[in-house]
This record gives sequence, C-alpha cells and structure tokens, in this order.
Amino acid sequence: MSENMPFARSRVVPIDGLGHSAVLSERITSAPALIDQFTAVRSLSLALSAPLSDGDATAQSMPDASPAKWHLAHTTWFFETFVLRDFLPGYRAYDDRFGFLFNSYYDAEGERHARDKRGLLTRPSIDEVRAYRDHVDAAIIDAYPILPSKARVLLELGCQHEQQHQELLLTDVLHLFAANPLMPALFAPAEPAPQKANPLLWIEGRAGVVEIGSDGESFAFDCEGPRHSTFLSPHALASRPVSNNEWANFILDGGYDDPRFWLSEGWAWVRANNIDAPLYWQRGFDGGWLQFSLTGLHRVAPNAPVSHISFFEADAYARWVGARLPTESEWESAAAKYAPLDGNLLDRAGIIAPRGAHNSISELQQLFGDVWEWTGSAYRPYPGFAPAASAVGEYNGKFMSSQFVLRGGSCATPRGHVRASYRNFFQPHQRWQFSGVRLAKDLG
Amino acid sequence: MSENMPFARSRVVPIDGLGHSAVLSERITSAPALIDQFTAVRSLSLALSAPLSDGDATAQSMPDASPAKWHLAHTTWFFETFVLRDFLPGYRAYDDRFGFLFNSYYDAEGERHARDKRGLLTRPSIDEVRAYRDHVDAAIIDAYPILPSKARVLLELGCQHEQQHQELLLTDVLHLFAANPLMPALFAPAEPAPQKANPLLWIEGRAGVVEIGSDGESFAFDCEGPRHSTFLSPHALASRPVSNNEWANFILDGGYDDPRFWLSEGWAWVRANNIDAPLYWQRGFDGGWLQFSLTGLHRVAPNAPVSHISFFEADAYARWVGARLPTESEWESAAAKYAPLDGNLLDRAGIIAPRGAHNSISELQQLFGDVWEWTGSAYRPYPGFAPAASAVGEYNGKFMSSQFVLRGGSCATPRGHVRASYRNFFQPHQRWQFSGVRLAKDLG
Amino acid sequence: MSENMPFARSRVVPIDGLGHSAVLSERITSAPALIDQFTAVRSLSLALSAPLSDGDATAQSMPDASPAKWHLAHTTWFFETFVLRDFLPGYRAYDDRFGFLFNSYYDAEGERHARDKRGLLTRPSIDEVRAYRDHVDAAIIDAYPILPSKARVLLELGCQHEQQHQELLLTDVLHLFAANPLMPALFAPAEPAPQKANPLLWIEGRAGVVEIGSDGESFAFDCEGPRHSTFLSPHALASRPVSNNEWANFILDGGYDDPRFWLSEGWAWVRANNIDAPLYWQRGFDGGWLQFSLTGLHRVAPNAPVSHISFFEADAYARWVGARLPTESEWESAAAKYAPLDGNLLDRAGIIAPRGAHNSISELQQLFGDVWEWTGSAYRPYPGFAPAASAVGEYNGKFMSSQFVLRGGSCATPRGHVRASYRNFFQPHQRWQFSGVRLAKDLG
Amino acid sequence: MSENMPFARSRVVPIDGLGHSAVLSERITSAPALIDQFTAVRSLSLALSAPLSDGDATAQSMPDASPAKWHLAHTTWFFETFVLRDFLPGYRAYDDRFGFLFNSYYDAEGERHARDKRGLLTRPSIDEVRAYRDHVDAAIIDAYPILPSKARVLLELGCQHEQQHQELLLTDVLHLFAANPLMPALFAPAEPAPQKANPLLWIEGRAGVVEIGSDGESFAFDCEGPRHSTFLSPHALASRPVSNNEWANFILDGGYDDPRFWLSEGWAWVRANNIDAPLYWQRGFDGGWLQFSLTGLHRVAPNAPVSHISFFEADAYARWVGARLPTESEWESAAAKYAPLDGNLLDRAGIIAPRGAHNSISELQQLFGDVWEWTGSAYRPYPGFAPAASAVGEYNGKFMSSQFVLRGGSCATPRGHVRASYRNFFQPHQRWQFSGVRLAKDLG
Repeated sequence: MSENMPFARSRVVPIDGLGHSAVLSERITSAPALIDQFTAVRSLSLALSAPLSDGDATAQSMPDASPAKWHLAHTTWFFETFVLRDFLPGYRAYDDRFGFLFNSYYDAEGERHARDKRGLLTRPSIDEVRAYRDHVDAAIIDAYPILPSKARVLLELGCQHEQQHQELLLTDVLHLFAANPLMPALFAPAEPAPQKANPLLWIEGRAGVVEIGSDGESFAFDCEGPRHSTFLSPHALASRPVSNNEWANFILDGGYDDPRFWLSEGWAWVRANNIDAPLYWQRGFDGGWLQFSLTGLHRVAPNAPVSHISFFEADAYARWVGARLPTESEWESAAAKYAPLDGNLLDRAGIIAPRGAHNSISELQQLFGDVWEWTGSAYRPYPGFAPAASAVGEYNGKFMSSQFVLRGGSCATPRGHVRASYRNFFQPHQRWQFSGVRLAKDLG
Repeated sequence: MSENMPFARSRVVPIDGLGHSAVLSERITSAPALIDQFTAVRSLSLALSAPLSDGDATAQSMPDASPAKWHLAHTTWFFETFVLRDFLPGYRAYDDRFGFLFNSYYDAEGERHARDKRGLLTRPSIDEVRAYRDHVDAAIIDAYPILPSKARVLLELGCQHEQQHQELLLTDVLHLFAANPLMPALFAPAEPAPQKANPLLWIEGRAGVVEIGSDGESFAFDCEGPRHSTFLSPHALASRPVSNNEWANFILDGGYDDPRFWLSEGWAWVRANNIDAPLYWQRGFDGGWLQFSLTGLHRVAPNAPVSHISFFEADAYARWVGARLPTESEWESAAAKYAPLDGNLLDRAGIIAPRGAHNSISELQQLFGDVWEWTGSAYRPYPGFAPAASAVGEYNGKFMSSQFVLRGGSCATPRGHVRASYRNFFQPHQRWQFSGVRLAKDLG
Repeated sequence: MSENMPFARSRVVPIDGLGHSAVLSERITSAPALIDQFTAVRSLSLALSAPLSDGDATAQSMPDASPAKWHLAHTTWFFETFVLRDFLPGYRAYDDRFGFLFNSYYDAEGERHARDKRGLLTRPSIDEVRAYRDHVDAAIIDAYPILPSKARVLLELGCQHEQQHQELLLTDVLHLFAANPLMPALFAPAEPAPQKANPLLWIEGRAGVVEIGSDGESFAFDCEGPRHSTFLSPHALASRPVSNNEWANFILDGGYDDPRFWLSEGWAWVRANNIDAPLYWQRGFDGGWLQFSLTGLHRVAPNAPVSHISFFEADAYARWVGARLPTESEWESAAAKYAPLDGNLLDRAGIIAPRGAHNSISELQQLFGDVWEWTGSAYRPYPGFAPAASAVGEYNGKFMSSQFVLRGGSCATPRGHVRASYRNFFQPHQRWQFSGVRLAKDLG
Repeated sequence: MSENMPFARSRVVPIDGLGHSAVLSERITSAPALIDQFTAVRSLSLALSAPLSDGDATAQSMPDASPAKWHLAHTTWFFETFVLRDFLPGYRAYDDRFGFLFNSYYDAEGERHARDKRGLLTRPSIDEVRAYRDHVDAAIIDAYPILPSKARVLLELGCQHEQQHQELLLTDVLHLFAANPLMPALFAPAEPAPQKANPLLWIEGRAGVVEIGSDGESFAFDCEGPRHSTFLSPHALASRPVSNNEWANFILDGGYDDPRFWLSEGWAWVRANNIDAPLYWQRGFDGGWLQFSLTGLHRVAPNAPVSHISFFEADAYARWVGARLPTESEWESAAAKYAPLDGNLLDRAGIIAPRGAHNSISELQQLFGDVWEWTGSAYRPYPGFAPAASAVGEYNGKFMSSQFVLRGGSCATPRGHVRASYRNFFQPHQRWQFSGVRLAKDLG
C-alpha cells in the first residue's frame, strides 16, 4: 500500500481520522480498463485484511458491523452470483452453502444467515475464504472476454460494491479493536504531519434552480439519479469541516448536557447511551483527549476534522453554533462547482482551486477524502427514481427510510469511489463510520 | 355535537374512519373571536371525553398513546403555564405538582413524569381534572381583556395545541378500546350512508418552481413556514385516497408477504409484528373483513378510504400498484390550487370544484377530512426555518428526524385545524392515527 | 373494619408495615360455618376496595401486580367456575366473556387475557364487577344447601383463594400508589403506638427428625402436605424479625455496596436496578428515612420489622450479620412448638408463651402477623406431594421453580389465613409484598 | 487421547452424547501426585483445544458460553493469581492486563471484562494464550517444591477448576458449531457400538436418616460439605437414565404441547422459544431424528441416554410418565451404596455391581459418565456450610439461587472429576450441557 495509494487522500497513514495530510497524490490520468479495475479492487481487499488474524477476521462487534472475513466472502459471492451464475452458462457454485451464508440482504436471492450471527461463522476460515476468492477471481478473469455487456455492468457494480465493503471492513475492524481493552493497532502508528488551523470561511452557494444527480455518463449507483432540477434558497457552506478543536469547545461548553441543542430523538439517544464525546474519544490521564484509531491510541489532532460523530451530534453542534447542516443539494451543487470530477475519479480532492481573482481566499476544502459529511437531507428517492432491475435492485432503494445522507468521502474511502453525486447514508445514531460535519447557513 | 360539527367533515358519526359521508357542513363564514374560539375548543374537549369512565380516561394502552385524562390536563397546563404564569402577574399555580405530571416534553420546563407511566396516574381523578380545567378556563376568560398581544398569540397556539390533542384523545381511546376483548364502543353506532365507488383519476399537478409554506397571514405552526420556493418535477396525484376495497385486493394479492414491495425497515416491521392488514381490521366468521372503530365492530366499508395504515404499508401499496407517494410539496401545491382555504378554516373540504370546462371530471376529492395522507417526505425544516422562542419553540422542530409528513386531515381532526400548509408527522411504523394514502406518479 | 378485625393482627391501621401494635385481638373461639365464612370473605373484599376510584381499581402498575378490579372479578370467576359451573346443573355463566378475561393461569380452563395487559380492561367498570359479584354471591348462597361435599371443598378453597387475593389487592394498590408522585393514601393516617426496641434473642430449635406439613385435618393448600419427616441440624432462630433500625445500620455500613454479602444473582439485581434501600423507603429532607405506605408517607418506625425487602436483601443482610436465613422446616418446627394453632385460626399470634421457667425471657415473637419471613428454602414439593385433581391442581404445584418460601403472615394477611404449615412463595427479587426477615444460625 | 482416556467413560468417541459404549477403561490404581495431576490436567486442555482454529477459539455463541481461548486463559489466570501471585514472593504477572480480561466472576479480584463480550477479544490470539499457559506452567512446576501446603490446596483446587472448564470448553464449542450452518465436526466421526435396550428397573433406595456430603477426606468443593444427616422418605430410583427412544415417545405423545406436564415457568420457556425437542435434535429428511454432536450430524442413538435437556424438560417428562426427579440426597445415597468411589477417582463408573444374589438383575447403571442427571433439588447450602476464605470463596456459594443440582458426570467430564458428593448446578432452562434425567418415585 505504499506507491499507489488506493484511498481518496494519500498520506502515510491513510485509513485514520487522524493526521490528515495536505500532501496529495498525483492525479490518476486515465481510467483503468474494467478488468484491471476488478483486479485492483480485489487485491486491495486482500491487502487491507492481510494484518488480520483468523480470529480478528471472524469476530463481529455489533449487529451493524460484519466480520472482515464476511466482507471478503460476501463481495465474492456478489460476483459469483450476479456475474458468473447469471451469465456464465454451466457455472457451478464453488460451494452451494455459501449463498445462504454470504447473501447480505437480497430477499430475491432467498433465505440467508442472520445478520447478527455472522460472528459465529468460525468456518469457513479466512484461508478458506481466500481460496474462494481465488476461485471466483480466476473464473471472472477467464470469462471476462466473453461476458456480455450486461454482465460487465454488473462487474463494474461489483467493483463499486466491493469498494464500499473495503471501507466497512476498516470501520468494522476499528470498532472491534476498540472493544478490546488491549487496544490493538491494525497498522503501525505514524506521526502525522502537524496540520495548521485553517480559519472557517463561509462560501456562498448557488441559489435558484440547479441540477443535481448523476447524468449516467459514468458509473453511479441507481439512487444517484436521475439528474433533475431542484431549488436552492440563498445559503453558504463552511470552507472546511468542523475540527476536533472546535468540537472540544462544544464539549467544554456543555453541549452534550443541554437538551436545547438536540433533536428529541437525539437527546434520548445521548441520555440512554451516556454519550459525551465522539466515538473513540477518551480522556487521557492529564485530562487531554485521546482517540483510538487503526494505529492505536493517540492524542486527538486539534486541527483535523472531527470524526465518528452521529447525525444527532452533527445537528446539535450546528444548532449550538447557530448554523445548520447543508442539504445534499447544496453540497452537490458546491461540489460540482468547486471540485469537478473527471469521470468517476477524484480530481484534486481536498484542495479546491480559488474561485477566482475576485474572491481569492474562497475555497471549499476537503470536500472529499477526510470525513463523510452529514447532511440534513433524509435519504429519499429523487424524482423519477427507479431501482435497477433484478436482485441488485435491492441495492439502495429499499433503505430509503430513517436514514440521512452523507456526502463526500473519508480517509477510508477507496480512490475511485468518490464523486459529487455519491449518496452515502446511515441512521442518525450511527457513528462508527468516518463521519464528520460541514456547517451551512441561510443567507438573507 | 349535533348542530355545529366540530370536525373537518360533518356526518352522523364523525369520528370514525368508516362511513365517510358526502354531506358537508355549511361554510363557516367568519372566524370567531379568539376568546370564543378558546371557549369552543375547551368545550369540545369536554364533550369528546364525556362518555368516558374514570377508568377509560386513566388507562394508557401504549407509550405512544396517552390517557384521555392526561390530554385534558396537559392542554390545561399549557394554557396555565404559557399564558397565565408567564403573563398574569401574581398568578399562582392551581397545583404546584401538576407541572411535573402534565408537562409533555418541554425540556425547558424542567423534569417531568415518565411518558410511558401516565397510565399509573389514577389520581387526580377525571373529576379533579375537570375542576382544574374549570379553574384555568375561568382565569383565562377573566384575564383575557388585559392579556398583551404576545399572550394572545400563545392563547391561539394553545387552542391549536388542544385541537391536536382532541384528535389524539380519540385515536388513543380507540387504541385502548381495541385492546379490550369486550370491544366497547365510545359512540353509538350509526349506519353510514353507502358510498359509491369513485373511479381513481390522475390529476396533473403543477411543475416547475412553486411556492409552498405558510405566509404567516393566518395561524400556522412554526414548522409550516417560512413560505419558500421549491421545484416540482412533472407529476400527477390520484383524485382520491386508496379505498378499503383496493386495499383488500392488495392483501389478496399477497402484498404483505412479498418483500419486493417493502422498504427494508418496513419488511422487518411486518415480520416482527405479523402485520397482515390495517390496524383494527380482523376477519369475520364468514371471511369478510371487519373493522373496529369508535362505534364498535362493523364490516369494512368498501369504498371508504383505507385508514390506520403505516407509512411502510402506504409505501408498499404504492410500489405494488406501480405508483409512489406524493411529496408534501406536490400535495400542498395541489391543495392550494384545488382546495383553497379561507383563513385557517376549511373551505369546501372534501369536494373539490371541477378544474374547469376542459376537464370536467377532474377533481381532487377528500384532500381534507377523511384520512391523513402519508407523503414520501421526511419531516425536515424548510429553508430558513427558525423555531419559536422560549419553551414553545420545542413544539415542532425537535421532532425532525425519523418521521414522515402527513397532509390533509382526518375525520377526527377538528374543524378549524386543517389547512393546506399543515404538516402532521409520525414515525413510519405508527398507524393508530386515521392515516391513509393518496397515490402519485411521475409524468413524462 | 373496626370491631372484628379481619387481619392477622388487630390495630388501628391494619394493612401497613408501619405501626405494628402489641395489642392483640381476642381469640376467635369457634370456626364459622362455611357459608358464613364465604359471606365474611366476600364482604371483606368489598370493604377493602371501597376507597378505590374506578381508575384506581383499573390500573396495573407492573406485570406482577393486578388491578384491584381484576382481583375482585377473578375471585368471583373462581367461585362461578369451580363451584357453580361444575356443580350446579343448568347454571349459565353471568357473562360468557368473563372466563377469558378473569382466568388467571389455569391452562386447563383455556385461553386467557394476557397478564400484563390487565390494566387495559377499563370495561367492565368496577360497578359492573360489583354487580357480577352480587350475582355470583347470590347464586352460591342459594345453591349452598344442595352443594355436594366436593363442591364445598372447592367453596372453602375459593375462600382461601380470595383471602390470598385480598392481600395482593392491598400490596398491588400500594405499589400503584407508590408510582404516583402525588403519593395518595388509601387509608387515613393514624399515629401508631410507639414500639419499644426488643433485644434480639436466639431461641434454640428442635434438632433431629421432626414432622412438618399439614396433616389434612383442617384446611390447607395441597402444597402444605403431606405431613412428613425431615431432619434438622442444631440451630437457633431469632426471637423477632430484623427491625427497620437494624436495617438502617446495614445501609449505613455499605451493605448495598459490597458484593461479598450478595448472591451473584442478587448483586446483578442490585446493580441493574440501583437498589439501595427497601422498596418504598426514601430519604427525607433531613436525611432521615421515610416510608410510603397505604396511609401515605411517614417516618420509618425504627423498631418495627423491616418490610418490603427481597430474598436477595434478606440473604445479604444475614450474611452481613454473620447469620443465615432459616429453612422452612426450622421455621415450621418452631411455629408448631411456640405458636400452636387452633384449627386454621391463629392463636395468640405474635406473642409466644415463655419457653419455661429456666428461660423466662425467651420468646419467638411475631411469627405471624407482621411480615412474611423469607426462608432459605426453595419452593419445592414435599415427599409424596400430589397436586389436587382438575384445574385447581394448577394452584400451587406448577410454580415450584425459581421461588423461595416465606412463612408466617403479614399485617395484610386476613385472619383465618395464617397457619404454621402455610407456604407462601415469591421470586427472590420480588419485594412488593410485606416481606421481612428473621435470622437463623447453626449451633454446635 | 487414545490410550489413557481422560474422560469418565472411555470409548472411541468420548466427548459426545452419542455412542455411549459399554467398554470401560481399566481402573486407575493409584492417585497421581499433585504435580503430575497438574501436568496431566494442563495437557488435556491443550489436547482438547488442538483441533480449534484461532477463530473457533475466539467466538462466543451466547453469554452463557465462553470462547475456548478464554477457558484456556482463565484457568491459567486462576493458577497465576491464587498460587503464584499469592504464594510466590516476587512473582510478576505475565501481563498486567490479563487479570482484567480473564477474571471470570471474582468480585474480590476487582473489575473485569464483561462476560458477554468475551467473543470480541480477538487478541491475545490462541498462540499468545498458549505462550501464557507455558509461562505459568513452567513457573508452577518450578515453584512446586517450595510451595506451602496452603498453596498446594489451591493448586489442587485449580486442577479441579480447570477440569470443570474442560467440560465447558467442549460444551461451548458444541454450541458454537451448532450455530454454524456448515455443521463442522470437532472430532472425526466414529461409528458407535450399537447399544442394546436395557429395561428400566426400579431400585429401592435407603429410607430414614442418611448421611450425605463430603467428609473432607479427599478433594471436594466447599459446597459439597459439610457431611450431615438428612431424612429420606421411602423411594426408588430408575436403574438407568431415560433413553433417546423413550424421549421420542414423549415428543410423539405431545409432551411439548400440553401445559399439564410443565412447570409454569417451563411452559412459558417452551412457548417463548418454540422448544419441541432436546437441543441439537433436528428432523432428518425421512422424518427420523438427527442429533448434532462434536462429531457432526448423525442419527439419534435410540438406546443412549437422552442428553441436552433442560430441568424443565426433565421435570415435564417425569410428570408425563407419572414419576418425579430424584432429590440430590436420594441420588447421593444411592451412589454411595451402589457406586462407591475410591478417593476422588471413579471406580467402575457406569456398571454397578449387582445388589446381591436375591436381586441379581438390579443395577443402577451409568450413574457416572453418560449424562449429568437433573435432580429436583434446588442448589442451596448444606447445614453448616461455610464458603472457603478469600476470593476463591466466591467459587460456589454465591450461585445458590435459581439453580438446580445435577449429579453424576457426563461423557465430557474428565476422569478424576466425578464423585458421589459432586454438586453440579445450572439454571432450569439451560441445556447446552450433557444433561439428562434419571427418574425417581415415592414408595408406599
């Protein structure tokens, strides 16, 4: 994982909310061919899970999370089922029982193993899962030349799907390790380059009718489209996400103790779970804040974006500071303007070019690559949305209740998996992802 | 409750999802003075609860519901606290302990009794609560002439607040009685006039930029504003809500058994709770559907709007039939066009005037007064939303997560409490309200 | 309730853990005829529930407790079913639906209403239940002369059954009122005669083979027999139950904070429920202990027996003080020796005659009539136990797991319902009964 | 595990409810020296866990069960803490953090890791735990010559303690593997020698005063003593446990569907958990019963003792057949008479010598070594019981509520860990142990 950083932002320690580096990777100038993309994606999953023991890869720390081994097998099952089984005549399943074990939520694919019991699947072992991967990879590569275009669409979908699971694999391992009093580190700790404090600026967004959503020219999940008009009221977005330092002030000011800042449901969640800081924060002996990460326990970096906060916390912070969360339309409109993307690859993520001579300090930093940014938009279908046909139509649409949209991409999001139209979504109390917050406010 | 029907739709049996009559009351030609409105609202609450025994008024059938006695006392506490205490110098609380007992959720007003334990408050008795009401009513009427305008605003808010609780009182009693194997009736049964089947027509809505939201000219809750622009894609709304008969076909077709029609969360809810019909439906001995209502158990009226369904059910039905739920913007835009309101009073609710000579059969029936209509819109703030100041600012804004908006008004909604901008909201699994569904679809 | 005290111990305020008086009622010299007993028992239930409102009689404060109205109806159903229905040819049920509503746990009698939903039965009202009682009472009295002896056995069982429910009615109302912040009193408060502190003496019990259990000569529940031999090791019992004052010392010494004194299950219960004092104890403004009772809130009486403690607390206290709980055999053996009973009526309850000239101060006080005394004996069948035939065979035997035996009788136990062989039983965490503790220790 | 069978009953497949062989191992003629016993016990744990992967050893299938790795580490911590730390001056803990991780329930030893989260401890790995074991083993062996006698008592306790965990390790792995749809086998399957059906005979037990309990001459847990008198009523015990075949008849006869056979708590458990057969039983395609075991899935052996039943099931079966469960006194009295033990080692377990010429077929078979046998006795202290001093005093006494005693020993109980006075105990619903039932009945 040294040369060609697979993640949205390149740095020494890539998969951690801490130590966000300003050093950016070079632009990737050409999209890889699909089969190369497949190979690269498949390899990255193995690389990410390489430091895990069989036990690490088996355990499940909560129903929301899955074992690493399960991620590795489930993504493989996806290719085997929707590409090989459906398009390769005569293909026989590697193991007939794996469909039951490694189907995640596709009702059309039949019964499946209970989600919250995945940690009990000590067999197949991680080595057996790797053999399963090898088998399916070889079959895909073998079949690739003769795959019909419909199958190639599903192959690309499978790659994007696996990239989602790569991020989940990392966040799930982080959650697991955080539950271990020994506080193991998945990656060797590295001293992040100190980040300087950037002032928070307000960048005025477009108002009036704008177009958002994927136009279908490059890969996008079904829920990202169709492209459509929406109306934006006058507003501004913050130039960067809220920092750890700012968050510490929220804590200091009693933000977690005052119901006025919280949604009713959020306040109940705070009280029921004794929430008083972002997930993975704990007090050090000297009273300073420490953060557990994939490189172990270390001091909170004051100027890095705050991470591992729930929608409820993001929303309460915004109310405390007299602002609000951006809508996803506002966010996407800004991203399209300030951080245009080339194909589905990230172009100049993180540092946005100055808007122009007339506003030389304006910048919308770090839209991609540090933390997923909670928006105030519930995850609902766009006008004219129609889910994809067949079982993969269950991919997105059926989750469109009780979830909020996050935009951008985190330090754990694979490169090639960020785009302006991307709609990530989680429940408002969930916070084991690399989730942060960018403020917005109404103008005039 | 005979002459001047207090509910949105006048009929012999007004507070029931069954027997929706086409006979409408005359237009109320002038808005009553505020103090008359107060008196009328307060009287209606007493009238509604008159048939209840002390036990009926005390019991709580689930945490979502409250005892009738509690509704009567809580609405009184609202006036006592936010009008008398805050604006009448020297006013002393009727009973110092009632603030703890009858505050619902105003954190700014301090600690309060646990919501799910309201059914344990056998004291004060219903007679004692009535005495409390009398005391506060007299004090308000006495103080009315000298109340400052700020207090009058809160008085009006209190009336609207009590009207909300009138509907809840009825739905909560219905839920309670439905839990009693003796199936008691709150009101005497009446034979509804048979309704004929209306064909379901599609009415094209406005597209492009439209204005929605309260303009603040007449009463509206804070969440109904500010008035603002939004963009509507081409679409059509059904001319009437889905009927019981249509719903029975959905059941017959296996709608409750097929995960393809359901949101993931909805499907989990169906399975966990063995949902297979609207709430209060049960099979009769002959296999036909019966419905429990406030007038007891009777046959389901085939052409009446289906009621007591959850958002999940509404959404699944729409997917089954190849349609979708309307957004709240679409709904309000249609209501403003087809069912304009005079002040905050309902004008010609239920029967919408023909659109014009060129489309003489077009009509959007029953937008108000039969069932609340689930929309596909999550309950979130409008652009520029700011909650009201002080404790009453907790009225709406803090519930803006995990809820969906319902529009219109039901047979149990008090007259004077329906308007095009009204945003009712409930969680997607809740269905003890008179909640139904009107379909929508995308055009071209 | 003035002249002929129906409870085990006569006093001004009979049904309260407070104010245990030393004044005892005269011995009742002859057993009443069965039908007179029936009439007296039925009247007492009405007298006990007379101060209750319809709401008071309807509410259910927890699944373990039942509404007063339900007690009144269930005991009536018992007579109607097992006497009238089974022995009176042609008897027709007062209301066919009451069997479903008021069967408690007799599986042989078919399906029944869910126990934890009894508080939702606002209908029938308390007046309707009283009418049901009148009907059944009249039918029983009418039929009495012709009832076969088998039916009379069930009639007597029904009286004993109703007496059990009389005590439960009181403890359940106490629990309900304790959940009301208004702290209502069921009975008028009365100043108890001050009790002086009695020294705790150790009374040596019988050792070797003793006989315990009912011999069947007078009424006893099936679980009280058969009479059988058991072996007692050398031991002594305390002369009186642990007092409130002694319990306060246990609290002061950190008894609730030290796991060494607790059974593992008890310690988990203490932690999960934040237990730190007997049920109904609370701190007064001056730091002194107050106790909520059926006469309202008052100071804890220092020399009265501690009441409303769980088995876990009783056991922990005993361990703290270096003693243990008595076994039920030890207790019954002592009761038979020091507090012999005449028939099934209490003779000289509370004050035990001196053991003899050589030990004139020895006495085993208050074996009956203050608090039920937790024993260390799990509730299990005696050798040769056979449950009664038919549905009433479900009366006792099926509860013989996870329960501990209590012996004696409380201030709320009806006179005529205490006897040496009586085996009361509750789960080890339950404490809403008038339950206390008498210590025991091993000798030699 | 071939030559010197470490388990109570030697057979080809020793650790399985299936295939109970009549072939018995030779008597072990002399007790091993303590340090040899230590070495043997420690080795057996490693041998038992040898087939486990790191994942197998890490997962936890339910809060009642522990990961194999945890068993291996916890038993090591026991020796390290109570022997090395407490008696070896200057001993330093192998890892200071292990006390927190591997303390099971000793409150006197401080805070500890949550029991139901043990499956999240993917680190230390099984190899690291083995290294921990090696370290402690070496230290014990090194220190053995100089250990004071008090420490040797604890060393012996530690061996017995580890033997308990050996059985738990097997039952916990069985439970884990049973949750895996792949149904992995821990041990290679072996065809058990067919067992012939033995007729069930009734063996009269001793009546009157008998002595039971450990006399302290050889090792026993504190709860096994003191030896004391108890009184037995006339009774008989069945000559063998209930067989699988007999249990299948109970199922066939509707035993699981009829509340009359069940304790109330048991019936609630049956209904809530849809219990209809012993744990690990499932129907085969041909309708015959299959059983999952540590050697995989196979047909139920008709004449083997039924295993993996709860107390509730044992009790219901006994009621169905018109018998009852034995008391632990009856059981121990019979064991002392028919299956005397030599030291704490089992002598000729399983086959009991004929009672005498006058009753040559009488035998009490298989008292030890097939299944633990539920008794009807609640687990409570014997007269005069005093727990051991210090933290190990928490070993037994604090669990003496809500548990029932099992006697004997199972096919998974290590040799050297069975004795007549042994009191095993579990909660009445638990059935993942090798638990069966022997019937008893009252005589005359």
